[in-house]
Amino acid sequence: MDIEKVNSMDFGEFVDVFGNVIERCPLIAAAVWSQRPFSDLEDLKKHFFAFIDALPQSGQEGILRCHPDLAGSELRRGTLTAESQREQSGAGLTTLDADERLRLAELNAQYRARFDFPFVLAARFSDRAAVSRELARRLLCRSAQELRTALGEVKKIGSLRLADLLRADPAKL
Amino acid sequence: MDIEKVNSMDFGEFVDVFGNVIERCPLIAAAVWSQRPFSDLEDLKKHFFAFIDALPQSGQEGILRCHPDLAGSELRRGTLTAESQREQSGAGLTTLDADERLRLAELNAQYRARFDFPFVLAARFSDRAAVSRELARRLLCRSAQELRTALGEVKKIGSLRLADLLRADPAKL
Repeated sequence: MDIEKVNSMDFGEFVDVFGNVIERCPLIAAAVWSQRPFSDLEDLKKHFFAFIDALPQSGQEGILRCHPDLAGSELRRGTLTAESQREQSGAGLTTLDADERLRLAELNAQYRARFDFPFVLAARFSDRAAVSRELARRLLCRSAQELRTALGEVKKIGSLRLADLLRADPAKL
Repeated sequence: MDIEKVNSMDFGEFVDVFGNVIERCPLIAAAVWSQRPFSDLEDLKKHFFAFIDALPQSGQEGILRCHPDLAGSELRRGTLTAESQREQSGAGLTTLDADERLRLAELNAQYRARFDFPFVLAARFSDRAAVSRELARRLLCRSAQELRTALGEVKKIGSLRLADLLRADPAKL
């Protein structure tokens, strides 16, 4: 899909296509549409990120709270978004053994209790061993720093999803 | 459900229960959770509305763009949220005849083209005749005024949904 195609979309199409660039936050895509026309992928990305950066801290935490746990109950129940399912699958999180799942569930619970949002990681840059290691490491970080790190991961995930969509064959969308 | 129950929810439960108070914007409920504890329904409402009011104009338009048309394609396809389905049903929008549906579809399309967001109305305060009349009237309003009117309707819808939830039997949630 080229950028002319993106710029020609009405808001309904735009939200259908880009609504999950930021996990379960179609509001953000719907707001970004106000900034069209976009010059290219980088420009589109810039508007998504600027919206996130301009939110009050509660809104930024809100974005994180719309994310599922990695290898968590939503993966087990099959209620992940298609994008999350693909990303968690690619990192090997769908084939953990019982011990690995339990260890990750414990770390996720500790992380949620400590930071009041779930652990978010761009799983496509990771694998099953690295996810646990990174979770254990970030559990020890200070809150303000961890919010910044987590939003950085949201942006990495969003960048990859946007790049996928712009590369995608429009006939398949 | 009493307010103590609300205040005892972790963010996962809170987003599950209040995630659609603002249609398809779980981000807002997830942000409001940061402001707990809440003293009562009015206080909870106040925090939802304050978040909306603090958004940049693109974000406020984004909220509107997450709403479905009244008696539109989502109603026909059966993809409305449970809350919207109930509200549109209650206003008699599920039993329009072909002429009424067509007339509303034309007005909705004109409204979208004029304001770049869909026509939003607290359908529970309305009926099928009033919906068309109000749509035709608001089509003639100035953009800045219409954005304010539409956000007022979002707040009415949110108030009713919150009141329903707080009255609801917690065992049924």
